[in-house]
Amino acid sequence: MTLLPAAPASPPSRRDDRAAHALRSVRLTRGFTKHAEGSVLVAFGDTQVICTASVVERVPEFLRGRGEGWLTAEYGMLPRATHTRSDREAARGKQTGRTQEIQRLIGRALRAVFDLQKLGPRTLHIDCDVIQADGGTRTASITGAFVAAHDAVRTLLESGRIAETPITDFVAAISVGMLENTPLLDLDYSEDSQCDTDMNVVMTGQGRFVEVQGTAEGEPFSRDDMNALLDLAHDGIAQLIAAQRAALERDLA
Amino acid sequence: MTLLPAAPASPPSRRDDRAAHALRSVRLTRGFTKHAEGSVLVAFGDTQVICTASVVERVPEFLRGRGEGWLTAEYGMLPRATHTRSDREAARGKQTGRTQEIQRLIGRALRAVFDLQKLGPRTLHIDCDVIQADGGTRTASITGAFVAAHDAVRTLLESGRIAETPITDFVAAISVGMLENTPLLDLDYSEDSQCDTDMNVVMTGQGRFVEVQGTAEGEPFSRDDMNALLDLAHDGIAQLIAAQRAALERDLA
Amino acid sequence: MTLLPAAPASPPSRRDDRAAHALRSVRLTRGFTKHAEGSVLVAFGDTQVICTASVVERVPEFLRGRGEGWLTAEYGMLPRATHTRSDREAARGKQTGRTQEIQRLIGRALRAVFDLQKLGPRTLHIDCDVIQADGGTRTASITGAFVAAHDAVRTLLESGRIAETPITDFVAAISVGMLENTPLLDLDYSEDSQCDTDMNVVMTGQGRFVEVQGTAEGEPFSRDDMNALLDLAHDGIAQLIAAQRAALERDLA
Amino acid sequence: MTLLPAAPASPPSRRDDRAAHALRSVRLTRGFTKHAEGSVLVAFGDTQVICTASVVERVPEFLRGRGEGWLTAEYGMLPRATHTRSDREAARGKQTGRTQEIQRLIGRALRAVFDLQKLGPRTLHIDCDVIQADGGTRTASITGAFVAAHDAVRTLLESGRIAETPITDFVAAISVGMLENTPLLDLDYSEDSQCDTDMNVVMTGQGRFVEVQGTAEGEPFSRDDMNALLDLAHDGIAQLIAAQRAALERDLA
Amino acid sequence: MTLLPAAPASPPSRRDDRAAHALRSVRLTRGFTKHAEGSVLVAFGDTQVICTASVVERVPEFLRGRGEGWLTAEYGMLPRATHTRSDREAARGKQTGRTQEIQRLIGRALRAVFDLQKLGPRTLHIDCDVIQADGGTRTASITGAFVAAHDAVRTLLESGRIAETPITDFVAAISVGMLENTPLLDLDYSEDSQCDTDMNVVMTGQGRFVEVQGTAEGEPFSRDDMNALLDLAHDGIAQLIAAQRAALERDLA
Amino acid sequence: MTLLPAAPASPPSRRDDRAAHALRSVRLTRGFTKHAEGSVLVAFGDTQVICTASVVERVPEFLRGRGEGWLTAEYGMLPRATHTRSDREAARGKQTGRTQEIQRLIGRALRAVFDLQKLGPRTLHIDCDVIQADGGTRTASITGAFVAAHDAVRTLLESGRIAETPITDFVAAISVGMLENTPLLDLDYSEDSQCDTDMNVVMTGQGRFVEVQGTAEGEPFSRDDMNALLDLAHDGIAQLIAAQRAALERDLA
Repeated sequence: MTLLPAAPASPPSRRDDRAAHALRSVRLTRGFTKHAEGSVLVAFGDTQVICTASVVERVPEFLRGRGEGWLTAEYGMLPRATHTRSDREAARGKQTGRTQEIQRLIGRALRAVFDLQKLGPRTLHIDCDVIQADGGTRTASITGAFVAAHDAVRTLLESGRIAETPITDFVAAISVGMLENTPLLDLDYSEDSQCDTDMNVVMTGQGRFVEVQGTAEGEPFSRDDMNALLDLAHDGIAQLIAAQRAALERDLA
Repeated sequence: MTLLPAAPASPPSRRDDRAAHALRSVRLTRGFTKHAEGSVLVAFGDTQVICTASVVERVPEFLRGRGEGWLTAEYGMLPRATHTRSDREAARGKQTGRTQEIQRLIGRALRAVFDLQKLGPRTLHIDCDVIQADGGTRTASITGAFVAAHDAVRTLLESGRIAETPITDFVAAISVGMLENTPLLDLDYSEDSQCDTDMNVVMTGQGRFVEVQGTAEGEPFSRDDMNALLDLAHDGIAQLIAAQRAALERDLA
Repeated sequence: MTLLPAAPASPPSRRDDRAAHALRSVRLTRGFTKHAEGSVLVAFGDTQVICTASVVERVPEFLRGRGEGWLTAEYGMLPRATHTRSDREAARGKQTGRTQEIQRLIGRALRAVFDLQKLGPRTLHIDCDVIQADGGTRTASITGAFVAAHDAVRTLLESGRIAETPITDFVAAISVGMLENTPLLDLDYSEDSQCDTDMNVVMTGQGRFVEVQGTAEGEPFSRDDMNALLDLAHDGIAQLIAAQRAALERDLA
Repeated sequence: MTLLPAAPASPPSRRDDRAAHALRSVRLTRGFTKHAEGSVLVAFGDTQVICTASVVERVPEFLRGRGEGWLTAEYGMLPRATHTRSDREAARGKQTGRTQEIQRLIGRALRAVFDLQKLGPRTLHIDCDVIQADGGTRTASITGAFVAAHDAVRTLLESGRIAETPITDFVAAISVGMLENTPLLDLDYSEDSQCDTDMNVVMTGQGRFVEVQGTAEGEPFSRDDMNALLDLAHDGIAQLIAAQRAALERDLA
Repeated sequence: MTLLPAAPASPPSRRDDRAAHALRSVRLTRGFTKHAEGSVLVAFGDTQVICTASVVERVPEFLRGRGEGWLTAEYGMLPRATHTRSDREAARGKQTGRTQEIQRLIGRALRAVFDLQKLGPRTLHIDCDVIQADGGTRTASITGAFVAAHDAVRTLLESGRIAETPITDFVAAISVGMLENTPLLDLDYSEDSQCDTDMNVVMTGQGRFVEVQGTAEGEPFSRDDMNALLDLAHDGIAQLIAAQRAALERDLA
Repeated sequence: MTLLPAAPASPPSRRDDRAAHALRSVRLTRGFTKHAEGSVLVAFGDTQVICTASVVERVPEFLRGRGEGWLTAEYGMLPRATHTRSDREAARGKQTGRTQEIQRLIGRALRAVFDLQKLGPRTLHIDCDVIQADGGTRTASITGAFVAAHDAVRTLLESGRIAETPITDFVAAISVGMLENTPLLDLDYSEDSQCDTDMNVVMTGQGRFVEVQGTAEGEPFSRDDMNALLDLAHDGIAQLIAAQRAALERDLA
């Protein structure tokens, strides 16, 4: 469905000779820690995030007595996940605006593929904790969290607590950006810092959008730029969903 | 430049018989309060926001000694701006994630049309305080804040503190959404609550994007939906910029 | 009943040639915003405060199950209501001591003219938000809040939720001060900064005191000073109550 | 100088047969703890407060480089100073509005008798910590804090850090209230809870007012009530200042 | 049972010629304040702590409906209990790590001698507030809190709310340290600052350990040092328990 | 040097048939994440902690201008490191008392083997983040943090920022406990919950104590118990230091 844009005369060179339209190496390690109902270590190149999905048999106040479930997400970063040490949010006593923005995004992305009625009166609590950051932590989080959530749902199915899966589709996310007029897929930290435009796209297995968040860091972007970036993202997310499917294969078979 | 999508057989009916592609009544009242260097009351229908721009002769730590300026924004809502009273953030002791997300967006939107080098070593502090809310508070805030910022810059020019305007273009914002398969411009609160897809678009006077934030609240959206919404937003923002230009006319003449 | 003190040989000159015993221009605009049960913009000269009264069908913990109601108040100031921008309390994460002192005062003042038994098991939540400050924000808040509370009560009466008004009298407030041995009524910001003594008086329609808060900012004050100031306040409040009555006339008739 | 109001036919009976115009037993114990430059245990009957005055060789930001000093106060209450245990403010993470109101009052009261220019570039930090509460904690705090501040000043004089005392007069405080139409001096907790009107008065050695804070808890009060209460307070404060003078006698001689 | 270590050739000289193995003067004043069910002023030399025990007829969430009681402790220090004034925790908005560590220790120490089943569904809330600090505030707190808790239990027994005492043994605490190779008992502040090793020991009336917390501030310590310190602590605690017993004699007789 | 206590008739059975005096499997993975100067994943059985050491070229206020360095530690736990999900401290807005206690302990333990003069005017910031918890998280943290700190020091040496290592000895930590009268080494979570006595011991390569923290959770413990536990800990720590040495071998050779 997508036609990749023709490579420019001389596209920006990327680490490890990665092509402009190539993802970094993606790994999804299930069962990474043992207590959570779902636990996945996701890596997009050097970005590594531990995603867990916890089943809590309780719903928030606003859903009490309605039989419906909820899915919510929290995001954090170890202080030395980054090039220079950043303050520990627990010690500073509050989460930054960036953290809150990301965790709200993760929650919305996952809820888009959940039928909360079928989840029943319980909460699926997603935690995404970045242990190593090199750009794309929010997109890796969403991509990994889907797999963790899937495993938590399997636990519920196997224990008979729910009869039918509340998951309605796959969901994954990727970043794209415009650097020196070239659209690049899956930006690492140094690319992200130089890009004029940075866009995060969340898409379902059916190729429909859940979120599109494009920001001009430098020069505002044109409609053509936008189209090129969306094409690139569409293609990247298809690959990510293939990786999720492979990781979950044993169950889905 | 934009070709509006053909009206559907029976589009959703809007308050006051507004057409699907029509803005609500927009008002920009300059000099609304007297102390701020720029002070604008902006109304998008029943949504009303006081936008002030304050010149502070100081820059944040990370810019010290570099001669460059900064522009930052804060956003708030009076507790009874909404249908039912919401908690006062100052009393709760923290800003919600939503508030932080919006104020970060306003800051980025305005910085996109500011040459901070030309602003010199000072901060332009934007405050957007919603006194009445009926949907679109963030887009009204950006649209009004641009006019307030413009007036603050005029103060700087007139007092000789800067020689040349740091403003490089107009900027305004609008929401669009997909309701019953019809793309609607400038959603009010009740439309926003029912929409499957809600998108906020920030655009410059030259018709380039600064931000595009589309979210599927219900059904994920297709690429065609996205295109229809962007067309609609483009047209709406052109009208808002015309309104800004009219409000500022005496200066720009 | 009050005998105004004889004008001194040469009283301090006031802005707009205002007499020592004259109020600033007072405006009470009802229905200023649309969602609140009562919403009033009050202006004492350049001081402008939005006062809303919200009916919340719930009482605080300590009144549960007693059938009685409650009235409470919160106060805030937009960051650029003042000459130089002040920090946003929601961003700092706490309300200042001054804010808390004022909102406690507003609550006590209004409760003095409310029969909470007649209000029934609900809370009247008063919000006073200063959009422009030029001295006297707490006295304008009390004066405006009374009118907003009155309108909220009318809503309750009209909807049949209460059978009888819980309001037992009018209440309003004014500041007085001693500047260069002259008692002045209704201090603006620059007068307030220079005064030796500053007093806020809250009084009912029957001319009885609800609160008297006199503070010597410079020289302590004598009993004679105190008497002169109370006389002046008594007279000013009578005028404010006349203004409240006029604003509410359609209902009271 | 004051003429006490005639006793009513049958005044309310007070604990220990105290007369309506009598203080509780007042004790001022200097040198109560050993580290502070001034340390006083003040008792008004069963109300006991530790008041310390600490000299800190530093001034707040807004006074830097001006040679002038500052005096500030903080107030606290041990959790079980009261009849039933109250929450520890340090554990709750914030001071109540009441605490902030009282500590601001104590600071203003003491500053009224301090020439901060003569104090030089240092801060006198007053701490008032209630170890047992039975009404009148703020008035006891002010009365005791004056003596502690005096001792701290003596330390500064003796060490030669200042040449001349910055203290310009005595200052003390008392509560008065109207119960069953009888003006009562120095209310204990149970009287305070029943009073219609409660007034705190801060006065100097010369009989001039620093603060008058009268509040109608129940019925609003008349001008005559106010006059009777001020007469009573004037007399009580004269006795407190005599007690302060006696406690400080060795130095003042 | 303990054999005191032979005095070294020339042990460090202590204030008031105190011997290396001697406690400071210990005082336990019961009924120090009047509202609490138990209230004790404990002094270890110049260290003075007000310990109160409050009975609250409620248990924490995790014990609801189990019939069992709870005992918890909070610790604080007046700002000028110390040589130089420290920040008030309530004003800073949080308790330090040191404060939390100490209050957790006090709670564990007291719970070790309480049969919470016998306490019944109520909480014994211990508050230890240091009014003068000279080293050993946590050990004095535990020692005094035991006596306060005992008095609170007596109140419960006398009012018939419990039939049998939940207290199973005495408990007290002391610090020991190694200074210039000499083990010292009950360190004051200046000794504590110089010690290489500082150990706090909590022990029961039967001479068994509840807590041993040894820390090398400078040189790590040997097993022999440890043994010498434990011997010394054992002996000191026996004396403290004798002092507690004497203070409580009237009841225990 | 230590003589292990004779095994009791029938010691408690441990998971995987572990002997009472045996450690769990210990792993120290250096270079676990890439940005930190030192980064180690330490595992004590199922307990896994990421320990990083970050060099920050700045010292705290109290050390400014003294040429000396500082070492400090922070500790955290991912919300789902535990059997049931615990609240995220960053979201709650404060660290628990337990967290603060542990991070203070880690800092003291490491500083005991650092010559801060030799570190020079910089801070070594240790972060220990538990990704999977099964008892012993603080002892694993100390043991792993030493290796991370060592690697950070190596970086400083190799870059020539310091000439000589500031590390004076090895340091490691282990827990021991008394269960059914049997001393057990290296408690896992279920053992820790059942133990009467729980002791954490920090020791240097020379077998001297840095910290001993013994707590009776149930029955108070005797001096003989204490001796048995210290013997066991001594032996376990010797094995941990051997493991640290092996992990660091390439450098130390």
